[in-house]
Amino acid sequence: MTLLEQLGREAKAAEPLLRTLSEEQKNQVLNQAAEDLVTHTERILRANEKDMIQGKEKGMKAGLLDRLLLTPERIEGMAEGLRQIAKLPDPIGQVIDEHTPANGLRIRKVRVPLGVIGIIYEARPNVTADAFGLCFKTGNAVVLRGGSDALYSNQAIVAVLKETLASCGCPVSAISLLEDTSRETAADFMKLNRYIDVLIPRGSAGLIASVVKNSTIPVIETGSGNCHIYVDETADPAMAAEIVYNAKTQRIGVCNACESLVVHERAASVFLPMLAKRLAEKEVELRGDERARAVIPMKEAAEEDWGTEYLDYILSVKTVDSISEAIAHINRYNTGHSEAIITEDKTHAEQFLREVDAAAVYVNASTRFTDGFEFGFGAEIGISTQKLHARGPMGLEALTSYKYEIYGTGQIRG
Amino acid sequence: MTLLEQLGREAKAAEPLLRTLSEEQKNQVLNQAAEDLVTHTERILRANEKDMIQGKEKGMKAGLLDRLLLTPERIEGMAEGLRQIAKLPDPIGQVIDEHTPANGLRIRKVRVPLGVIGIIYEARPNVTADAFGLCFKTGNAVVLRGGSDALYSNQAIVAVLKETLASCGCPVSAISLLEDTSRETAADFMKLNRYIDVLIPRGSAGLIASVVKNSTIPVIETGSGNCHIYVDETADPAMAAEIVYNAKTQRIGVCNACESLVVHERAASVFLPMLAKRLAEKEVELRGDERARAVIPMKEAAEEDWGTEYLDYILSVKTVDSISEAIAHINRYNTGHSEAIITEDKTHAEQFLREVDAAAVYVNASTRFTDGFEFGFGAEIGISTQKLHARGPMGLEALTSYKYEIYGTGQIRG
Repeated sequence: MTLLEQLGREAKAAEPLLRTLSEEQKNQVLNQAAEDLVTHTERILRANEKDMIQGKEKGMKAGLLDRLLLTPERIEGMAEGLRQIAKLPDPIGQVIDEHTPANGLRIRKVRVPLGVIGIIYEARPNVTADAFGLCFKTGNAVVLRGGSDALYSNQAIVAVLKETLASCGCPVSAISLLEDTSRETAADFMKLNRYIDVLIPRGSAGLIASVVKNSTIPVIETGSGNCHIYVDETADPAMAAEIVYNAKTQRIGVCNACESLVVHERAASVFLPMLAKRLAEKEVELRGDERARAVIPMKEAAEEDWGTEYLDYILSVKTVDSISEAIAHINRYNTGHSEAIITEDKTHAEQFLREVDAAAVYVNASTRFTDGFEFGFGAEIGISTQKLHARGPMGLEALTSYKYEIYGTGQIRG
Repeated sequence: MTLLEQLGREAKAAEPLLRTLSEEQKNQVLNQAAEDLVTHTERILRANEKDMIQGKEKGMKAGLLDRLLLTPERIEGMAEGLRQIAKLPDPIGQVIDEHTPANGLRIRKVRVPLGVIGIIYEARPNVTADAFGLCFKTGNAVVLRGGSDALYSNQAIVAVLKETLASCGCPVSAISLLEDTSRETAADFMKLNRYIDVLIPRGSAGLIASVVKNSTIPVIETGSGNCHIYVDETADPAMAAEIVYNAKTQRIGVCNACESLVVHERAASVFLPMLAKRLAEKEVELRGDERARAVIPMKEAAEEDWGTEYLDYILSVKTVDSISEAIAHINRYNTGHSEAIITEDKTHAEQFLREVDAAAVYVNASTRFTDGFEFGFGAEIGISTQKLHARGPMGLEALTSYKYEIYGTGQIRG
């Protein structure tokens, strides 16, 4: 048995115990873990420093180093995240449905944990505590495979969390970390169907595509967002400009940022100059089709612009003759994340909501709201861009399954 | 572009139209399809005859030939299946949830189709009409890859259904059949993520394992059932004997048949002789551990018996000292399908329901009830043994996803 298999087996062995913890027990552990992380701030920071030194030596980019860096404030942030999760209602044990068909059986559909969840992510040590909190609250064991650049940090955080678990009398294999961060072991991890029930990749489009391609374990795809805003001919141009400005520039590196503007040709002449003026404040580069460029000067958009998630101060601009053309364009190029229409026409709003194929479809609001907290779900494990199991912001419920509990009185099938 | 890609693309192109069909339109097509299948009975039977001749020449086993065979009654059965699906309530468009968080957005969670569903199955032509009916009712396009031995039959059935679609003004690519049944094309099909949203394999454990291993499209695993019945020390032995007899022998080739008996050692001496007598009526072979064999004569069970889904007149018998030992044994060897306890002890019943990890867990009833019709869901696309998306009998809802439709009044994120 390899170390990896050993780890999977131990996680699976923790499952029956985790399944039966009460809400109070789970919240107690989460609050204790928050306290322990803060208590061990020095120890975690020392480990993080080793990662930071290695990262600088390897020439990691500033943005990545910033994601890797831990500070006392960031550790307090991780702890606060765990306290918030403790406050969320526990979905486990909830009776989703109850009915008695003609055979007289009493059938209850009850919410249960998924079992063992694998998380594959990059060098962001805050994900470590966060993923543990969400999985533990839902009675799941978690096996983490973080980026090699954050290994020391992750080891320190996981060690603290295991100490918390032990001190609370819970199985320490409720959390485990794959310390061998080689590609070979990652590939083996993605085929550990015997012990892992679900795999959730969190990170870049490349990481996610690799997991989808190589995993034999069911995967929940998260993340990539080529989000559009369609400005209808009846849109209020001032509202449209504020919304596009917000969705493009409020935070550029996130998956629900707007990457592409679709504008009705009858709205373009008034709206585009207003928008361009607003976006100039942040020096946003526009890349447009011919009709857009006839209204205001901008770079020419190439075919690949329509499909690009820039995560940068760049916005593509497509002009259309009708809402149907807008919808067809969006359904061709979007990634199933968040799409918006700005309109004063109720019929157009309804058509857009119905026909655009994405997790979250907005009327007259910024795409930046697609997020567990904004949706009122609390902390989230990611934003699903697939249609199976969970779609959009995934709160605690997305980490659960259900079972049928059936009471009979001796029924046999005729 | 290969023929396969062409087919995927056309199915995807049908999606927007299918999504917006009304319940009445869909039911009209389903009822028309039922009528058309019956009208074209001769044509379908002629195609089926070609498959049967080839099958006999190839030396297909009697059981497989029987599954392949169509008769006027079986075609009427397929038609009746479609009429039944027309009668089920349409889940599409249902508002699952509606709320307004602090940001003032009105968020509606609405049920939508999955999109394009791929079904991979063996030489059972009745699945062809059945899968179409369930997918069409839920607004999904379906791409079928049936067994090569049923190709002529499937072509005839799909041709009739496409004629129905055309005559009703619906896109004919709502259903398509992969006519190239080579392994290479099947492998390519399982990687057609761009066009196919979900893949559902229906058939033998080998087929399912191959799809899970090779598909990059999300898969819903169905089917295999190593189902146990645990006879507790407090069980009513007469009830227990009737239930085990029913679950083992009422239909042996199905996934919810009982394959293994787990018996408390204090129940064994009274119960096992009663059961053996009842099972002798159907000449069921018992394979037991040492303690079971000390009560009544039977074959010795080997380690591999505990993990075997016999689908035959064979039952393994395991003796335990406690309910906890029974649960541990079941959780080790079961396939997540259906498990039962026979007991008069309420605490034991609850422990079993809570701790056994399977889609359907029964108290005092036969495992044979795990089935869409018995659960009151109507026709089913299969019984899911995984925890993601759907678990247990999958009715129409399992073929749906949801989206968030969000109404704002100009909200931007601060």
